[in-house]
Amino acid sequence: MNEFFESRSEHVAVVGGGYASAVEELTEFVLRGGKRIRPAFAWTAWLGAGGDPASDQAVPVIRACSALELVQACALIHDDIIDASITRRGFPTIHIGFADRHRNAGWSGSSARFGESAAILLGDLALCWADDMLRESGIDSDAAARVSPVWSAMRTEVLGGQLLDIEAEAGLDESVDAAMRVNRYKTAAYTVERPLHLGAVLADASPELISAYRSFGTDIGLAFQLRDDLLGVFGDPTVTGKPSGDDIREGKRTVLMATGMSRADEADPRSATLLRTSLGDADLDEDGIGRVRAALTEVGAVDDVEQRISHLTDRAMATLEAGDVEPQAASQLRHMAIAATQRTY
Amino acid sequence: MNEFFESRSEHVAVVGGGYASAVEELTEFVLRGGKRIRPAFAWTAWLGAGGDPASDQAVPVIRACSALELVQACALIHDDIIDASITRRGFPTIHIGFADRHRNAGWSGSSARFGESAAILLGDLALCWADDMLRESGIDSDAAARVSPVWSAMRTEVLGGQLLDIEAEAGLDESVDAAMRVNRYKTAAYTVERPLHLGAVLADASPELISAYRSFGTDIGLAFQLRDDLLGVFGDPTVTGKPSGDDIREGKRTVLMATGMSRADEADPRSATLLRTSLGDADLDEDGIGRVRAALTEVGAVDDVEQRISHLTDRAMATLEAGDVEPQAASQLRHMAIAATQRTY
Repeated sequence: MNEFFESRSEHVAVVGGGYASAVEELTEFVLRGGKRIRPAFAWTAWLGAGGDPASDQAVPVIRACSALELVQACALIHDDIIDASITRRGFPTIHIGFADRHRNAGWSGSSARFGESAAILLGDLALCWADDMLRESGIDSDAAARVSPVWSAMRTEVLGGQLLDIEAEAGLDESVDAAMRVNRYKTAAYTVERPLHLGAVLADASPELISAYRSFGTDIGLAFQLRDDLLGVFGDPTVTGKPSGDDIREGKRTVLMATGMSRADEADPRSATLLRTSLGDADLDEDGIGRVRAALTEVGAVDDVEQRISHLTDRAMATLEAGDVEPQAASQLRHMAIAATQRTY
Repeated sequence: MNEFFESRSEHVAVVGGGYASAVEELTEFVLRGGKRIRPAFAWTAWLGAGGDPASDQAVPVIRACSALELVQACALIHDDIIDASITRRGFPTIHIGFADRHRNAGWSGSSARFGESAAILLGDLALCWADDMLRESGIDSDAAARVSPVWSAMRTEVLGGQLLDIEAEAGLDESVDAAMRVNRYKTAAYTVERPLHLGAVLADASPELISAYRSFGTDIGLAFQLRDDLLGVFGDPTVTGKPSGDDIREGKRTVLMATGMSRADEADPRSATLLRTSLGDADLDEDGIGRVRAALTEVGAVDDVEQRISHLTDRAMATLEAGDVEPQAASQLRHMAIAATQRTY
């Protein structure tokens, strides 16, 4: 990533003005960290499909996998505008950082507006640079041709998932199906399935292995999101790093909440009303969150989601076992899957 | 473009929910029109460098050139959020259209916020699809390798130009130089120079021809923006299609205004104050605009900008004449240059 950012510095400098300083914010945002989960899945899939880390293809493949971090930078920066999030990875989000910069410098106009505008543009830049990084990765032209449709599908899917997410939050569809569809495309395909698919085609894997990876990835990706939904309501803030119950206050249309509402409609109308009035109530206090927790548990939504996670994880592990994956990489994928889906609250 | 949009429909349909309907808005936005100036410059440059419209490369080249319209779709959609623009090409802007959709459906949350979020995501999608369209254009791998650095530079430059533009509007730098730098990267490089460069490398043009195209393109692109600045203050609304004086009300930091302020500072402090207080005054009436026009004329800013346009246009035409451009295409480029820079008010 460092190497890539350095390769852009000349063009940025040519434009001049405050561009280099703004790009510095993007660079720090990306280099500061995160779990690198998408490149890790892609790289491990490449190894699992017979990619040789000692070969001269290893560095080009690492570059191609790392380009996923730039797609993710755009997704995070733009999502933080959409969700009006204040912090990310312990630092101000990009739009908040630029709003502060505007305010501190005493510039004219709205600081919030300036911050969002700068963040829109820097997210766009990250998205453009993701393509540049993939295109300039040095993978051979056959590999590039195999990667192209996967890369294209992944981005069209994740943007679709994000769009369905804001529609769901606006109340277009509160069904479990709608929430599952968001999970499928905003999370599972984008975070696990397509990164594995990408690594597989980079190694020119067999159709059977690609198919096994994709099933495994979809199941683990869905289980990961369902676990995240549970953690968002029941998680220990000292472990998850975010206040428990914020998902409720922000009105997130999770499968957990959709299941709770659907079950309560049938069995317990008072709980159904409680869940609906609590969802999106920014002022909900700890007692209110407690009542939501109790209702979700009592109507059986928590058990239902736990069962889904178990079922998905079991099926994923069986798929991985049956697939022709190099043993060390398979073991690594199992560990990553467990880390992403296990109970930590 | 139609063909390309159809090629995406399967992926969009797979995601389901409201995605297809949202993408329909993007498709209509792109297909509705605009001047197609960037693909036209790129295609004409390809012809001028010896590209044969009867060859089997013509269709792939048309696709690659057309991908510029998708970059432009993103630029317009995101710029309209940044500038809080209400209409575009006689229709509601994308973010306004989605806000209306939200309001009319009686969804929950802020309609304005929903509209901007949807527009951020659809702009991102256009940007991703621009890359897809270029990558899937069918140009051969040598051409693709030549195009890659041009494509990359163009996008890094235009995003830099947009960023400098919002910084200039925030008042970071009111110099003529800063305004010229925005014109150079937000308009000239992106609208003329790089499209010509793209067409040239598609045709594997000589370094001399590429250099001639780029000089011509930079000069014409700058002259085009300067003419646009003049039209924004002095233009006939029935010709330009936008209310005269809106650039002043919106606080656009044009070279015209920067020149006016700089000249007034030296010669006419009262006019300098008038220009500074008028710029960004959303309530400025027709009389106020009239006073700005008079001040810009009296301090010599209008003459100065007209001279810049003449100088740039003359130099561009001389460069084109001296370059080894196929005669019919050269004539076409001359006409396009005149249309973009001539006085129409």
